[in-house]
Amino acid sequence: MKKILILGAGLSSSSLIKYLLEQSNEYNWKIRVGDMSLETATKKIENHENGEAVKFDVFNKQQRDEEIENTDIVISMLPARFHHLVAEKCVESGKHMITASYVSDEVQALHDEAVRKELLLLNEIGVDPGIDHMSAMKIIDEIKVKGGELISFKSSTGGLVAPEFDNNPWNYKFTWNPRNVVVAGQSVAQYIDHGKYKFVPYNQLFTRTEKITVLDVGEFEMYPNRDSLSYRETYGLKDIPTILRGTLRRPGYCAGWNIFVQLGATDDTYSIKHSENLTYREFINSFLPYNISDTVERKLCDFLEIELESETMSRLKWLGIFDESKIGIPNATPAQILQKLLEEKWALGAEDKDMIAMQHQFEYILHGKKKQITSSLVVKGKNQIHTAMSITVGLPVAIATKLFLTGIIKQKGVIVPTMKDVYEPVLKELEEYGIVFVEEETYLD
Amino acid sequence: MKKILILGAGLSSSSLIKYLLEQSNEYNWKIRVGDMSLETATKKIENHENGEAVKFDVFNKQQRDEEIENTDIVISMLPARFHHLVAEKCVESGKHMITASYVSDEVQALHDEAVRKELLLLNEIGVDPGIDHMSAMKIIDEIKVKGGELISFKSSTGGLVAPEFDNNPWNYKFTWNPRNVVVAGQSVAQYIDHGKYKFVPYNQLFTRTEKITVLDVGEFEMYPNRDSLSYRETYGLKDIPTILRGTLRRPGYCAGWNIFVQLGATDDTYSIKHSENLTYREFINSFLPYNISDTVERKLCDFLEIELESETMSRLKWLGIFDESKIGIPNATPAQILQKLLEEKWALGAEDKDMIAMQHQFEYILHGKKKQITSSLVVKGKNQIHTAMSITVGLPVAIATKLFLTGIIKQKGVIVPTMKDVYEPVLKELEEYGIVFVEEETYLD
Repeated sequence: MKKILILGAGLSSSSLIKYLLEQSNEYNWKIRVGDMSLETATKKIENHENGEAVKFDVFNKQQRDEEIENTDIVISMLPARFHHLVAEKCVESGKHMITASYVSDEVQALHDEAVRKELLLLNEIGVDPGIDHMSAMKIIDEIKVKGGELISFKSSTGGLVAPEFDNNPWNYKFTWNPRNVVVAGQSVAQYIDHGKYKFVPYNQLFTRTEKITVLDVGEFEMYPNRDSLSYRETYGLKDIPTILRGTLRRPGYCAGWNIFVQLGATDDTYSIKHSENLTYREFINSFLPYNISDTVERKLCDFLEIELESETMSRLKWLGIFDESKIGIPNATPAQILQKLLEEKWALGAEDKDMIAMQHQFEYILHGKKKQITSSLVVKGKNQIHTAMSITVGLPVAIATKLFLTGIIKQKGVIVPTMKDVYEPVLKELEEYGIVFVEEETYLD
Repeated sequence: MKKILILGAGLSSSSLIKYLLEQSNEYNWKIRVGDMSLETATKKIENHENGEAVKFDVFNKQQRDEEIENTDIVISMLPARFHHLVAEKCVESGKHMITASYVSDEVQALHDEAVRKELLLLNEIGVDPGIDHMSAMKIIDEIKVKGGELISFKSSTGGLVAPEFDNNPWNYKFTWNPRNVVVAGQSVAQYIDHGKYKFVPYNQLFTRTEKITVLDVGEFEMYPNRDSLSYRETYGLKDIPTILRGTLRRPGYCAGWNIFVQLGATDDTYSIKHSENLTYREFINSFLPYNISDTVERKLCDFLEIELESETMSRLKWLGIFDESKIGIPNATPAQILQKLLEEKWALGAEDKDMIAMQHQFEYILHGKKKQITSSLVVKGKNQIHTAMSITVGLPVAIATKLFLTGIIKQKGVIVPTMKDVYEPVLKELEEYGIVFVEEETYLD
């Protein structure tokens, strides 16, 4: 009997826990789920005979140490900043660990000791990062094997509402942490385009978009993500002249969101005193010059050079930013105020389902000819528990856990899933769950 | 005999040291000047019989303590972040202190003890902060005494090149720390206008300008400074509906500078790898989208919606930002790269003189009538040592020191010069040195 400890039983753990419990009899696993809320952990277990729920507090060192000592492998679905606490104890106690989060410097520092103790610390095996790594590396490796020269790699992912439930003018609803959406992009985006380094400041970010079509779910626009340059090392593409990673939104979203950026309404660095007494209209007006004769709407249009009758203005009006209702939260930052408004308007309805869309675009030269491969994925949520986000984060983690416990994945140390012997079996099993990339190849010349 | 210890003998101490030495025989003062560079300190003493130079290291606690114990009053002209080290020892040893810098929280915390020990810790008595406080408070108090109701207060200051030496298309040269100019405004500006709070993000700052004429030195534009709201407390103007502080530049400067802001070329938060090998042209191009057919100039104009033949483009071209010369400094931030270029182009020539321009605009209601007072100051530098900046920072510090040592200023504790018994005698003596505000009053209705 193998003991698996899952830390964190939030939304992103639903599909993960379900998968492991379903296979627990076949593989003789005991699944122990720890969460701050015992209720949340208990719910996810669904009274399964091999499941066990426990109230878990990551800051309680004694409990943390005991739980880790008493298991064989830890799956940490805690907020990313806590992983290193778990990872350090895992390495100390000779336990393996799997996470869906980016490798932090603290976790990376454990690599040598993990290798020495023959421990696996597998990270970035959810979705963005995770499925994107694996599906991209599959094609990158295939191009290399064929003898092709990769000259461009663009990759983008979006978590959105499924088209069937897409009924607001932004074509967007929150399917994940709203705060991350509000403050997204507030550090420079870096990429390389035809050999030229490109740095995109926040105030340009939502205008530097590219149009993309993904399978049958339609049109998107992609804005650049933070640091695309570091992926050259991750993917072994040191000299590639073009590499760009981005986030997908529906057309028009970025132009609308850019208004908030230009106004300063996404700023999270200062608090507005007595914001509870302001109306949303006054909030927006506070970013516009004083003018006794013009309306807030008029001033906003003049300042941003848009038309009162434009689609962008319709989107803004629909959000209620010109309404006289009170904000109600005290001493909030602009970003917090905006988030509160958006959480009301962009909430997923009780029957709504979400969607993950992803597309890689490769350009390469083979025998003197320029070819393009696009590899696209669309995953829709099953319900409000097994959302597309929960499925695409949790299933690769769960599958990798099984593949490791059954001896198929043999890697050791602190790794991300860019090796063929990791990504190949994981991608293969993901297909059984409907997570299937559609590849299209064309000549470009 | 009174002993005065001056810490820091840089440019801003020139006029201060000169004043105190000149009066040292009359008042029986010994002036000891400490600086990291003994040469700098020695130069400023000019072999005066009452002057003494010493190599001083603020981080050397023993030296710091000994120097402070052996004096009667300390004038700290060190970088602002070091004042508290000096202030704490002053209060401990029962010494007075005078600085031209903003009161930090650490210095403020010494107030009660300073009052108990009957010590003066006078701060913000240079220029902006300093002369601006005193000249504004004089008029604010006069309006109050008359029974007027102040409804608007705008105040702005600029350090610029004197008009006689103003010969570049930006009408600007560095007369002070270049770095502060390059990163100016990178946190939200806050003010209140007709009772409406206004928050100006960085990307709007250099477009939110007002035109101003100062005496016979002509036209300026003013952009808002950081936190104007806090001046309501400093000046006792709790309920004033309009208060705005700003920085003065010549017309056209802000539109030109805004290009760098919009590009992201003033960002100081990340380094560009191997920036030494880039040209300035490549640097500018890195902020613009890739486009195979357009020049960098064309792309910049399109992106920022300006004309190739515009004055703004002439200003940019004159700076050499489209030149193919190498940047030469490794792993620099955009702000550092821009600063290097500007330091070559905006350097004061050997014979150039600088200028400080300041203007307060007050609106108030008296007996039902709306009146406006403007109070304006222009100070030009005498030479490259006694610059306008050095004179306006150093003289009020020096005068306040004399007035305190001679018993005319009687305040104790941590203060700024907003009290009449401080500002009145200081302003009066400043007039003898040509620092004279010109007041104009008109009816507005």
